[in-house]
Amino acid sequence: MKIILIGASGTLGSAVDKALNTRHQIVRVGRKSGDFQVDITDTASIEQLFSKVDDFDAVVSTTGDVHFGPLAEFTQDKFQIGLRSKLMGQVNLVAFGLKHIRDGGSFTLTTGQINEDPISVGASGAMVNGGLEAFARSAAIELPRGLRINIVSPTVTEESWSAFGPFFPGQKPVPASEAARGYVKSVEGMQTGKVYRIGWSRD
Amino acid sequence: MKIILIGASGTLGSAVDKALNTRHQIVRVGRKSGDFQVDITDTASIEQLFSKVDDFDAVVSTTGDVHFGPLAEFTQDKFQIGLRSKLMGQVNLVAFGLKHIRDGGSFTLTTGQINEDPISVGASGAMVNGGLEAFARSAAIELPRGLRINIVSPTVTEESWSAFGPFFPGQKPVPASEAARGYVKSVEGMQTGKVYRIGWSRD
Repeated sequence: MKIILIGASGTLGSAVDKALNTRHQIVRVGRKSGDFQVDITDTASIEQLFSKVDDFDAVVSTTGDVHFGPLAEFTQDKFQIGLRSKLMGQVNLVAFGLKHIRDGGSFTLTTGQINEDPISVGASGAMVNGGLEAFARSAAIELPRGLRINIVSPTVTEESWSAFGPFFPGQKPVPASEAARGYVKSVEGMQTGKVYRIGWSRD
Repeated sequence: MKIILIGASGTLGSAVDKALNTRHQIVRVGRKSGDFQVDITDTASIEQLFSKVDDFDAVVSTTGDVHFGPLAEFTQDKFQIGLRSKLMGQVNLVAFGLKHIRDGGSFTLTTGQINEDPISVGASGAMVNGGLEAFARSAAIELPRGLRINIVSPTVTEESWSAFGPFFPGQKPVPASEAARGYVKSVEGMQTGKVYRIGWSRD
């Protein structure tokens, strides 16, 4: 398969690359690095990416910004960071990508556990993750041509534990290579509309 | 209790009004009708509402617009309708309301089943509902002063069945008076971070 991997240079992206690149062709995309560049908050930039890298079998996104902060201090601008980047950025990879992806192709987007297992300062991130998972469940029943869509919701990775661990008291992190299994399952499996939770479970 | 009911003149709002007004003082708010007016897509309008109606015990929202249409035909403007109104409009009732609400007060917002039980043309509505429910779960653990937040997720009401029924094949509608029970439970009960599903269940 030809797989467009957005966020390829990040912790998760690198692990997904490694898990898939022996069996597939990976087109590595980053904000500033990689084979191609994209700014997912800019729909023109997304359109340009898909017009350059046409005829692909999968889009995997391991990217998206969101602001963390106390609910009482959230401004509209801070909410918009997550809405424009992690939420609509990833949604638009699907909205624009579905015009270019091959029959039977798949989209795999990334959330995280905090919409079901909330943490302090995570209200915006939770909202964005909840929106993405619901979008995927709904888009799954509408996608034409055998196209599929799934979400991977990993817990904190061991590689990013020093940065994010303090926000997740008691959480056991997973190696990024473990989180990468969710992306392999989504791309190479046949399911659609699913949320693959890695390193944590709901309720 | 003094309860601000936003969307008071609508089908759900009227039923909630009826279910609460014998025991509580209801401040009825609408876009153009009611004791006070608010445009929830405009943060200045929300601030103005809460500066006029200060010292209240509950905010109940039964309002919010979202666009329904095929995923392949969604434009950015169409996505923004739901993001600005039903999602951020209701989130901002909390973000601005929490500076004015009395200790131990509650927020009750409205979603609907399509984020868990998707329908055709509902991808944006699903996204918005999923975002709201996740926001409520996360905000619940951060709210100070004994404040609470819950979601009511009713199925289609009998009163709106002629308009929405065709989108929900096989669904059994409920009277709006039945949906109103969820709002009573949220306002008069003690739980927080919950989604009260009325007339349908998850999985």
